[in-house]
Amino acid sequence: VERFVLKIWRFLEKAWSIGVSEPKKVVHCLKVGLALTIVSLFYFMRPLYQGVGGNAMWAVMTVVVVFEYPVGAMLSKCINRIIGTFFAGSLAMGVHWIASQSGEQFEPIILGVSVFLLASVATFTRFIPTIKARFDYGAMIFILTFSLVSVSGYRIDELFEMAHTRFSTVAIGTSICILISMLFYPVWAGTELHHLVNRNMEKLADSLDGCVSEYFNDNGDVKKSDDDPNKKLQGYICVLNSKATEESLANFARWEPTHGNFNFGHPWKQYPKIGAAMRNCACCVESLNSCINSEIQVPEYLKKNFSDACMRLTSHCSKVLKELAVTMKTMTKSPTTDLSVGEMNFSAQELQNALKSLPNPLLFPPLSENETKGEATTKHAAVTLIDIVPLATAISLLIEIATRIEKIADE
Amino acid sequence: VERFVLKIWRFLEKAWSIGVSEPKKVVHCLKVGLALTIVSLFYFMRPLYQGVGGNAMWAVMTVVVVFEYPVGAMLSKCINRIIGTFFAGSLAMGVHWIASQSGEQFEPIILGVSVFLLASVATFTRFIPTIKARFDYGAMIFILTFSLVSVSGYRIDELFEMAHTRFSTVAIGTSICILISMLFYPVWAGTELHHLVNRNMEKLADSLDGCVSEYFNDNGDVKKSDDDPNKKLQGYICVLNSKATEESLANFARWEPTHGNFNFGHPWKQYPKIGAAMRNCACCVESLNSCINSEIQVPEYLKKNFSDACMRLTSHCSKVLKELAVTMKTMTKSPTTDLSVGEMNFSAQELQNALKSLPNPLLFPPLSENETKGEATTKHAAVTLIDIVPLATAISLLIEIATRIEKIADE
Repeated sequence: VERFVLKIWRFLEKAWSIGVSEPKKVVHCLKVGLALTIVSLFYFMRPLYQGVGGNAMWAVMTVVVVFEYPVGAMLSKCINRIIGTFFAGSLAMGVHWIASQSGEQFEPIILGVSVFLLASVATFTRFIPTIKARFDYGAMIFILTFSLVSVSGYRIDELFEMAHTRFSTVAIGTSICILISMLFYPVWAGTELHHLVNRNMEKLADSLDGCVSEYFNDNGDVKKSDDDPNKKLQGYICVLNSKATEESLANFARWEPTHGNFNFGHPWKQYPKIGAAMRNCACCVESLNSCINSEIQVPEYLKKNFSDACMRLTSHCSKVLKELAVTMKTMTKSPTTDLSVGEMNFSAQELQNALKSLPNPLLFPPLSENETKGEATTKHAAVTLIDIVPLATAISLLIEIATRIEKIADE
Repeated sequence: VERFVLKIWRFLEKAWSIGVSEPKKVVHCLKVGLALTIVSLFYFMRPLYQGVGGNAMWAVMTVVVVFEYPVGAMLSKCINRIIGTFFAGSLAMGVHWIASQSGEQFEPIILGVSVFLLASVATFTRFIPTIKARFDYGAMIFILTFSLVSVSGYRIDELFEMAHTRFSTVAIGTSICILISMLFYPVWAGTELHHLVNRNMEKLADSLDGCVSEYFNDNGDVKKSDDDPNKKLQGYICVLNSKATEESLANFARWEPTHGNFNFGHPWKQYPKIGAAMRNCACCVESLNSCINSEIQVPEYLKKNFSDACMRLTSHCSKVLKELAVTMKTMTKSPTTDLSVGEMNFSAQELQNALKSLPNPLLFPPLSENETKGEATTKHAAVTLIDIVPLATAISLLIEIATRIEKIADE
């Protein structure tokens, strides 16, 4: 029993921490409660109840099903639901008319066959990627409404009225949802996406910084900086894992109207591209990291030889990334970006020069050291240097894409 | 107009190709049609209709909403739906009883407040990761049923009967779904996951193979092998992108009963772990690939020096990967795997030796070549070699995890 109580206690603690760290989510929950209570008014108030009758429950259902966290997700569901209901309703009425003309014996057969055919076809369209991305929910609602209307048409006489009330209750439900979610503290998918990409850029810069500086300073403060830098270092894992979130947010963002600094035609499609470039970068950071954590240790004197150039290149790289993050935040093309890119490229060149001017005896250290160790040294020094070069190229690729976006965004 | 027709034609062509390449999906569509037609029988046959009455539409709705492609997804939705409906129904009846005892004036207030509170709390639980992964749909159904039953209880007198029929129609709908999807050509999430991971392993081996062999043979048949190897080479991108699919399939697979070679307690959680290890590997392949495609060209004589050892290591790596794939497929621990792992480690050692025994003048080629080119050479030869070492370590990591799984799976 005690363990069970402890488990519940931990669960509540976790829930509380989520609520504290993201108050937006709590507000969202209250909004759902509010929308449902308003819809319930249709039941409690007699005149409203007589208007739509027992079908008011469709409005309740619409609110529950459609109310999503980001505005874009909700809008796309609303539009899908309305379009799906409308098409399926009209089609079902047409089929019903044909069935009713063809005599009592054939009516159930025609209805059954049409339900079978349309449900199969609509289910199949849900497998097609372009439809799945945008109209998955609409196809489901289409099947639902079509089978409901056409099948219950067999028993209910006022089919037209039924289709009409169903459509109007869905419209009432969706409009309540849209009003409430857009008026009170809206959560825009676009803004979330923007912040996510921005944050990831900063994380990437931090983890690149942390990774390299830890490597070159790891004699001084290994134990002291055990907790915080490790967290920073793991930033690239966040970047690697945020693909699915980015894509769904970009998908929702397309449905959203103008808000804040974002216009309706904002190039949302570019965000997943930046994300992909950053993931490419994070991949490089990962292999760099695994090199650094490998068992082969490089002697101090060789490390020192390169530490300056490496650190300089790294700091330039992360500076460029951070500047890009700022540029994205303010959505203005900053004039210093080009400058820092130039500086970065210059220090990459410098590092290559350092490698070139490396005296031979240093690469193959004096014979007093045993040969295997010397071997490991050559190899390893080369690794850390070389792995920064693809990193630099990946970053410059990122810069290219990012600058392209700035142009699109500012136009 | 012509462009529109062309667009539709292309769309149909695409749909056709999906249908041809994956006939399972077509079967799934027919299954949905069949299930809906069977549910419609409740309407068409008089005795059945009188049993459940107009509430039969709940059964239709259940079928449409619950029928998912993999069996596991459907089962999880069914169980969620039944549990959610049951809890919400009983709770709503309790609240209704309290409200009806407290007089006509307070009844709507109590009902409204309870809807507001419970909807907010249930929405909040959907944000908690552990609940979201398993019971997201159940929470939604809970809100839906609770508000429907408690709100319509204000107008309808036979509330108990309504809750009862709603529950029984949901049960009818889910049982039809489960029967149809499990009896005719079931698509098990577990099997799909197994194949996906298996296929990814083979793809990774192919792209590793292709990447290295293309590098060392690219003078011979560059133009001939332009299409097919490139496809193979891109295999690692598939591996990198399959994270979300793997996780959702593993999540669904946990709900599935024993089928084929998989028992109920099959360690599905291990699959995403293998997937993560493979993604780690794919990351290495990616940086290897970017090294190979970089602008700096290595002179032939240096390439030839290492090509044998590199090729041998690569072929051993991909052999191990392919053997692991076979081992996974047959789910028996093959005795040759350990042997090939040993061979792989041996050839990695060999490559290190080759690097060690490299004569100095070769590394720094004769002064007849200009210095910059020599520099690039050293650097680049080192890269290709060194990048294989983390690859090998990543692969041995993968092997460790995989062998661990074999043990679990065979127990």
